[in-house]
Amino acid sequence: MSRVTRTIDWDTDAVVIIDQTALPGAFRTLRLDTVDELIDAIRRLAVRGAPALGAAGALGVALAARKHGTASPEALATVRAEADRLARARPTAVNLRHGVERALAFVEHGPDAVLAEALAMLDEDERVNRAASRHAADLLLSRCPDRPLRVLTHCNTGRLATVAWGTALGTIRHLHAEGRIDVVLADETRPLLQGSRLTAWELADAGIPYRVLPDSAAASAMARGMVDCVVVGADRVAANGDTANKIGTYGLAVAAARHDLPFVVVATESTVDRKLPDGSGIVVEERAGEEITHVAGVAVAPEGTPVFNPAFDVTPVELLTAVVTEHGVLAEGRPRKPALGR
Amino acid sequence: MSRVTRTIDWDTDAVVIIDQTALPGAFRTLRLDTVDELIDAIRRLAVRGAPALGAAGALGVALAARKHGTASPEALATVRAEADRLARARPTAVNLRHGVERALAFVEHGPDAVLAEALAMLDEDERVNRAASRHAADLLLSRCPDRPLRVLTHCNTGRLATVAWGTALGTIRHLHAEGRIDVVLADETRPLLQGSRLTAWELADAGIPYRVLPDSAAASAMARGMVDCVVVGADRVAANGDTANKIGTYGLAVAAARHDLPFVVVATESTVDRKLPDGSGIVVEERAGEEITHVAGVAVAPEGTPVFNPAFDVTPVELLTAVVTEHGVLAEGRPRKPALGR
Repeated sequence: MSRVTRTIDWDTDAVVIIDQTALPGAFRTLRLDTVDELIDAIRRLAVRGAPALGAAGALGVALAARKHGTASPEALATVRAEADRLARARPTAVNLRHGVERALAFVEHGPDAVLAEALAMLDEDERVNRAASRHAADLLLSRCPDRPLRVLTHCNTGRLATVAWGTALGTIRHLHAEGRIDVVLADETRPLLQGSRLTAWELADAGIPYRVLPDSAAASAMARGMVDCVVVGADRVAANGDTANKIGTYGLAVAAARHDLPFVVVATESTVDRKLPDGSGIVVEERAGEEITHVAGVAVAPEGTPVFNPAFDVTPVELLTAVVTEHGVLAEGRPRKPALGR
Repeated sequence: MSRVTRTIDWDTDAVVIIDQTALPGAFRTLRLDTVDELIDAIRRLAVRGAPALGAAGALGVALAARKHGTASPEALATVRAEADRLARARPTAVNLRHGVERALAFVEHGPDAVLAEALAMLDEDERVNRAASRHAADLLLSRCPDRPLRVLTHCNTGRLATVAWGTALGTIRHLHAEGRIDVVLADETRPLLQGSRLTAWELADAGIPYRVLPDSAAASAMARGMVDCVVVGADRVAANGDTANKIGTYGLAVAAARHDLPFVVVATESTVDRKLPDGSGIVVEERAGEEITHVAGVAVAPEGTPVFNPAFDVTPVELLTAVVTEHGVLAEGRPRKPALGR
């Protein structure tokens, strides 16, 4: 296991993060002294994953409060403007705004109170991640009681996506600790390859057996009987359980439903947007074309190639077995087919 | 339009191919003087696609016959051994073996007769590709008569995969010539990115509007109403219509069935293996792990990462609208849902 246990933390006057763009080639930390540096890190996905973005939002408000002070109306207005700019660094990430707002609520009590609240969020993150992933692990064990599991997952939802434990990958950590993991199939997760770069690194680091596969091979792996269940995280969950998550999640859910495989979304309550009745209102962010046309700086498409590069897709709850948070099952979706249908 | 119109051809004493590993960065031809060089080109996917591999097999036998002669039993045995080695360069590619066997049938008539047969195969390839893709275009027009089409395709099935025209991409060429293409959505097709490297290059070269997308975004594009139909090629088709094609095809077919979108496989008769009753007997080739763990020479996964990298998957005919060859519809699969079901 590598030494650093927190993906994002506070050190004296700055935010310190594990630079996720450098993995798996190098393990490197970045010191971010200003809100601008933090926004840049969020946009470059050097820090990413819903819960880590919540922590980043709160710590960013602490940065702003310590720099500008909070003693005058002008200073308060400046901090609030900085906070708003931070919250909009990634518009789809509801946790980012949530973290910003939570720390901002303490701004009139001074910079130290803001920082204390941000640090409390870091501690709380590990607690809720452990609880949500415990519920998900219990659900999977009840659905697949017979043998160590072959679990398919998508993107990165581990400690690199959170502060210290993970959601879907936290579920896998719980199962592994109990000897219930045979192998993890980790989708590479194009375009940014969070699966092969980050999830594989975490699984190797934790000594959990795994294989990486192209996203397009997941349905075939299901058809060949290589998968017992699927577990993923969430970027944003609507009140009814419809789930926005990394592009590719919807296709996986369609394939899992065809093969009657349990499909569980693990999220923290802070990812749930109760003001959204269902997924139809979720606006999907489109990311830069270069993520598709260039790989590691090399052009892999003709110059000027137009792309379709949505960051997320929305999976309707009826394709999901369940959405689970730290409070237990938030929503249940498709019922199991009768045994004869398999 | 670029000048060279044949992807594989014969020039004096050698096989000449467009080097598909150099596209889209560079347009380069390779001169292959020996069977070993040809086998290497096949294995590296410098020449690829079922029909082009058929031509490669036949021209390779001509190379061997001209080098070793065919006048003695020993020479004939050598040519046959070389032909067998060639046929096994890619075990799943039934066209490669078919091309080898077809040229080999002329070996007792001498090297010139072998070469003449191989050259006849090149001419025939364009003819059957145009015919098969014409049938597919007509089928799609009958299913989607209302407006210019938004067609999703996977991998490369154009003139770069054949000798001069294409199967699925040939279908798109026919539709475009008739003003019936709105846009082509081209899956990038991991791991070797034939979609972004080759299909995008062909579409740009032909002036056909297109967008490249990650393979994992295709199902979401369907859900968002961005796709009218799907058309793909085939590596191998069983007698009942079950189809082995580039990894990812199965997942696309599952998603297209959910959205009731026509899904047409375009293949030449030489791709059909009538000795196989269905797809259950198809052995899927696994390719090297480096295709997943390295991109453009850069490691994107921890050292030693185990992978699952199947070259193909098998789509059961019940998920397909139809499999079409130069003789028309070979097999029909799922019926249309009644209009109310949409």
